[in-house]
Amino acid sequence: MTVMTPDQMEAALRHIGETRYHHLHPFHQMLHSGECDKDQVRAWALNRFCYQRIIPLKDATVLARMDDTVLRRVWRQRIVDHDGEIGDAPEGGLRRWLALTDGLGLDRDYVTSMEGALPAVRFACDAYIAYVRDRTLLEAVASSLTEMFSPMIIKARVSGMLKHYDFINEDVLRYFRNRLTEAPRDADFALEYVKKHATTPETQAAALKALEFKCAMLWTQLDAIQHVYVNGAPAPGAWRPGEALVAEAA
Amino acid sequence: MTVMTPDQMEAALRHIGETRYHHLHPFHQMLHSGECDKDQVRAWALNRFCYQRIIPLKDATVLARMDDTVLRRVWRQRIVDHDGEIGDAPEGGLRRWLALTDGLGLDRDYVTSMEGALPAVRFACDAYIAYVRDRTLLEAVASSLTEMFSPMIIKARVSGMLKHYDFINEDVLRYFRNRLTEAPRDADFALEYVKKHATTPETQAAALKALEFKCAMLWTQLDAIQHVYVNGAPAPGAWRPGEALVAEAA
Repeated sequence: MTVMTPDQMEAALRHIGETRYHHLHPFHQMLHSGECDKDQVRAWALNRFCYQRIIPLKDATVLARMDDTVLRRVWRQRIVDHDGEIGDAPEGGLRRWLALTDGLGLDRDYVTSMEGALPAVRFACDAYIAYVRDRTLLEAVASSLTEMFSPMIIKARVSGMLKHYDFINEDVLRYFRNRLTEAPRDADFALEYVKKHATTPETQAAALKALEFKCAMLWTQLDAIQHVYVNGAPAPGAWRPGEALVAEAA
Repeated sequence: MTVMTPDQMEAALRHIGETRYHHLHPFHQMLHSGECDKDQVRAWALNRFCYQRIIPLKDATVLARMDDTVLRRVWRQRIVDHDGEIGDAPEGGLRRWLALTDGLGLDRDYVTSMEGALPAVRFACDAYIAYVRDRTLLEAVASSLTEMFSPMIIKARVSGMLKHYDFINEDVLRYFRNRLTEAPRDADFALEYVKKHATTPETQAAALKALEFKCAMLWTQLDAIQHVYVNGAPAPGAWRPGEALVAEAA
């Protein structure tokens, strides 16, 4: 094994995104091109809440492993972004996600209880927290690098969903508007960190594996949603169209 | 909430098995009725190794939470059953599982590395270990109660696979032969434990939820296998037919 230069390392990370990030997943193609029905969009938003929910938990787990005050000052902004401020002004990303599930007519308590979410989605999210807790800090930081690729998917999602779905408007998609500035800032920092600290064949391989893990964790969520809500596989206990809708939406 | 009698509790547990255990999963119907091709059987055996692998880890995690010597003496037999003895005579369940993947022509190092296993399967298995570590001991024990239902599925599997697949023989299915005596013994003990210790509405509800969790964890594995190897969904990095076969089998 030979050591890569920082530029080669960045290219290798970008290659993983190009081949494994969930912008390639068939469900996202459906979602963005208007092929989903409203219940499939609901299923996606409901399940994706599980992922939104663990982001600040994941970042707190990473934060708890950082021995460097300077590093912690930077990383804690991620938690602020997702949790918002006391009194909820400005609101955080988690609340902005609930604006989407609200807009889709899903009962908020049902969404946040996660009782109708697919087990596969919850397992994937829990795996992410365990990953950043149990692996090296370098791997934990590297696993966040899917944010290098998220602006691409967010732009396609926002424009596609606004264009194709009459039940979607800019206000309910406001989660993504904020992410367009937050994600590149976070990704730039994490990429520099990884390029600086992954300086041996072993640590470089570990960082690349970490990004592969994260891509698989995102991909797995969409597989589960597609399997149940597109292919129509039975899912004992999972949300079914018509369930947990607020009166106006039902 | 009212308290159930032990008999009512047992009936409620059995009802969960009847409605959520993976004997109902479409992939098992395929597997047992001869509708799988050899690569689909390989995909199942390869992925299911991840579950076999964590059983002794799961039981060691439970054991580490038992403060009662008498209880530990009983529970440790599960680890013996799966790990076998030093020198591998008698062989344990894990080794007997590898007799199946060997028989299917899969490279043993590839199987045990789990590099071609589906992330969803690995996440589900990890979720099971986390569950028995983080929940109450009652919930950990109750989550093992799928073994109440496993003789039913094993009988259908062994007779169905022997009948329908010319690449399967009794020797490669020897894992299941042992389970037919081990599982009922383990299940009887765990059922008595749960009936004795789940004596309030809260603990009874928790024990039932634990069994639901375990059923979902098993179901999720088959969903992932079906999605990729029956429905043909892409799976970056996962085993593909033709890969990792030993010379004679390829």
